[in-house]
Amino acid sequence: MPLENFADRLLAAIDTRNTPLVVGLDPVYDRLPRAISGHRELNDGDDLEAAVDALLEFSTRVLKIVAPLVPAVKINSAFFEPYFSYGVEAFQALVQEATAHGLLVINDAKRADIGNTSERYAAATLIEPPFDSLSEHAAPDAVTVAPYMGSDSVGPFISAAQAHGKGVFVLVRTSNPGAAEIQDVLLQDGTPLYQHVGKLVEKWGAPLIGERGYSSVGAVVGATNPEQLATLRGLLPQTLFLVPGYGAQGASAGDVAKAFNADGRGAIINSSRAILQAHLNPRYANLPWEKAVEAATRAAITEIRSALHAARG
Amino acid sequence: MPLENFADRLLAAIDTRNTPLVVGLDPVYDRLPRAISGHRELNDGDDLEAAVDALLEFSTRVLKIVAPLVPAVKINSAFFEPYFSYGVEAFQALVQEATAHGLLVINDAKRADIGNTSERYAAATLIEPPFDSLSEHAAPDAVTVAPYMGSDSVGPFISAAQAHGKGVFVLVRTSNPGAAEIQDVLLQDGTPLYQHVGKLVEKWGAPLIGERGYSSVGAVVGATNPEQLATLRGLLPQTLFLVPGYGAQGASAGDVAKAFNADGRGAIINSSRAILQAHLNPRYANLPWEKAVEAATRAAITEIRSALHAARG
Repeated sequence: MPLENFADRLLAAIDTRNTPLVVGLDPVYDRLPRAISGHRELNDGDDLEAAVDALLEFSTRVLKIVAPLVPAVKINSAFFEPYFSYGVEAFQALVQEATAHGLLVINDAKRADIGNTSERYAAATLIEPPFDSLSEHAAPDAVTVAPYMGSDSVGPFISAAQAHGKGVFVLVRTSNPGAAEIQDVLLQDGTPLYQHVGKLVEKWGAPLIGERGYSSVGAVVGATNPEQLATLRGLLPQTLFLVPGYGAQGASAGDVAKAFNADGRGAIINSSRAILQAHLNPRYANLPWEKAVEAATRAAITEIRSALHAARG
Repeated sequence: MPLENFADRLLAAIDTRNTPLVVGLDPVYDRLPRAISGHRELNDGDDLEAAVDALLEFSTRVLKIVAPLVPAVKINSAFFEPYFSYGVEAFQALVQEATAHGLLVINDAKRADIGNTSERYAAATLIEPPFDSLSEHAAPDAVTVAPYMGSDSVGPFISAAQAHGKGVFVLVRTSNPGAAEIQDVLLQDGTPLYQHVGKLVEKWGAPLIGERGYSSVGAVVGATNPEQLATLRGLLPQTLFLVPGYGAQGASAGDVAKAFNADGRGAIINSSRAILQAHLNPRYANLPWEKAVEAATRAAITEIRSALHAARG
């Protein structure tokens, strides 16, 4: 059986769930429900196992709530790496859990190195572990990759994606303020660097275009600068955009609307804090934590889904 | 007691060991001595713990041999991440072991994300773990960082370095062939992107200049293009260069000579494969593996040290 193209799988999941919303699973210990983290407040999380258990308990609960509602989750490795080997185990457990719930998983690891070293990062982030003791572990469906080192640095991720039916999202124009300092620098022909990188991504992705017309090599394009988003949408017709910046980082539904092609396809919109930290709203303060997280997460997702639905037109 | 500046510590260690050579500890399972990995050859390393034990046994042996001979080791996280939590534990054990032997440790992780997420990567890579169960674990002395996302992405690493007496090496011009595609792109004033990034690094490093005149914010500058190396040396007088590409990637001692200022300072030269895989030379085939690794590693280091000594003038 040939492996199904990642872009096709993602587009099918977007259709099934009827939303391009992706939940960013970036759990922060001191933003967990106090019922989980509160009793360890005095020692400020210095018990490593207890801290990771709390993150995992919360994240697993969120996964179960969001699984029927969205096509994918994006899990950022940075939120687990400060917990060292326990963090890696928790990250793996969440990938496993999300996959079991039918969610696609994007590993937001922003990796890259010289070619033979990128091969190792691709093995760590995209390929099912070859070890007997991890034979039940699912690998993520896609990974984010940094472009600064060029084709032979990004290439091993793309090769792994092609061989294993996975995806790659290359940073093109990120959502943070400092991005302009490098990504918006003008080249000799008067165009900014991010467009040069975007065109490379479209080229790299050409061999991985699926039946629905999009490549499994996508681009990370922030929504905080909607004009640039619109420009890139026009330049890269076959590239799927992973769009961060919605909500907490300041972009509106109208802003992210520019990420979609005329057919309402071509992008997934990530929201992390607006969903994960919704339970902190005082209106949920009197509920048991499980109920608070469920009600808050559902309400946040419903609101964002509606806004995006209207924006996609 | 104020924390000593990382650049000062590194320069003092270079003086003590009388060489700017850094050993890149990037162990590859199928390039280990067969006495360690050979009996597991039939199942191709699919026993995760056994594979990591073999990598650790070899790497620990190499650390002991090189500790009196060089100022620092560079450990690339990518060579451990494919082993998941076991790999992270092995990585931590090697940092611990290297530190105990008096070596400075550079974590070649090439991380970066938006600001609040970079803070987490800085915690994972540069700061001693705050957890009781890891209270004996040393953190690396420096980390490599990718620049594409700009100041607010690199900033948290620099803040952590400043607060904890650590260092940061930002990718400026890497040694791989594909680097040219993005890093050499010409800007409107006719200068290439890598010079723009280099100047940002020199600016970011200004507040972290030590008593010896160099900043704890350094730059990764490959030796595979010696003209660019010379240009950057002239442009960034107070930036320490971490120079990969010597040996296996094709750069000669004459090439890397351009990384040094007139006083013979300003750079560390990394060699990985030429040292770590020296024991595979058939001339050592009849020795027990420990003797082979010791003889081969010493010979490789002696040869590179001499070549660099001549090159520094």
